Amino acid sequence: MKDFSLFDQTVEAFRCLPGVGSKTAQRMLLHLLERDRSRGEILVRLLGESLEKMKNCALCRNISEIDLCEICRDERRDKNTLCIVESPADVIAIEQASAYKGLYFVLGGTLSPIEGRGGDEIGVPDLIKRCQKDISEVIVAVSSTVEGEATSFFLFESLKHSTVHISRIAQGVPRGGELELVDGLTLSHAFAGRQKLE
Amino acid sequence: MKDFSLFDQTVEAFRCLPGVGSKTAQRMLLHLLERDRSRGEILVRLLGESLEKMKNCALCRNISEIDLCEICRDERRDKNTLCIVESPADVIAIEQASAYKGLYFVLGGTLSPIEGRGGDEIGVPDLIKRCQKDISEVIVAVSSTVEGEATSFFLFESLKHSTVHISRIAQGVPRGGELELVDGLTLSHAFAGRQKLE
Repeated sequence: MKDFSLFDQTVEAFRCLPGVGSKTAQRMLLHLLERDRSRGEILVRLLGESLEKMKNCALCRNISEIDLCEICRDERRDKNTLCIVESPADVIAIEQASAYKGLYFVLGGTLSPIEGRGGDEIGVPDLIKRCQKDISEVIVAVSSTVEGEATSFFLFESLKHSTVHISRIAQGVPRGGELELVDGLTLSHAFAGRQKLE
Repeated sequence: MKDFSLFDQTVEAFRCLPGVGSKTAQRMLLHLLERDRSRGEILVRLLGESLEKMKNCALCRNISEIDLCEICRDERRDKNTLCIVESPADVIAIEQASAYKGLYFVLGGTLSPIEGRGGDEIGVPDLIKRCQKDISEVIVAVSSTVEGEATSFFLFESLKHSTVHISRIAQGVPRGGELELVDGLTLSHAFAGRQKLE
């Protein structure tokens, strides 16, 4: 339908969103056009502004509107500890859990030769430089997937000649989880990493 | 996090999309910021353009960029038959199936006193006017839900004094569906509406 060229193009454009296929894309656009034009316009304005203004923090590479993000500028945080995570989503999750009070370093993904991400792309040279200055402890909080394990190993190798203490967040059974539902690999790790009751 | 004010606002704005909660909204925005800025910008441009230009066809109330939509202007279509549907999505589905070659009338929803949609809101006065002119047959293709049934009944009542033939698309077992998986109400309808083999 020729009439629908702009419509079709916009449906197609919605498919850039993760998990959105053509049916969902069409439903999203029709919903905005028929029921929620004003909120649609707000989305257009804010998303446009975000894409224009949001960049990476010069120090931690987290998403930020300004050169140095709020966390890196916060004087109350522990400036000697650095937590290495894959993505800004991990920073948000850790901050929401109030699990950590130091600084962050965002890799922007795991090592992936297929996708062209090597040590330089995940920022290892910057990381090594930072570890030569104020940082005394590095906590690796990378996902425990195959790619995450390889990335962690690479980070350990890259940092082992510096003076920093390197640790990794604990792997084991999740709190509140039923033991019988936990997978075998996690259980093995939980046994291997058992801690003394004191 | 103060830094994230624009970020948080944009995440909130994504929630205007149907089926998108706060976690999905965050994932969508981070995906665009980290991986797909150029397609994000295309989405902003096309969605903005759609919200600005797309309106309802003056005749059939379908979504259209111009006053009279492509279907209403198409000389090859049967101008005497009118198919009544709930939404533009239904028009797209029927057109994709090539199931029908007449004109359409889009109600824009079913009757819903709670949501403030009465006969005027779903365009019944316009519909009656059209049925006094060129239209000789009306096919009601409204969903077979409780609201859809009430709407169909209201349409029959509104049009019964005009000279048009009113019919309704068949209800029965879907093609390719297993009989044992069809619900009881549909089966009852399928028996009541049985057709002679000739």
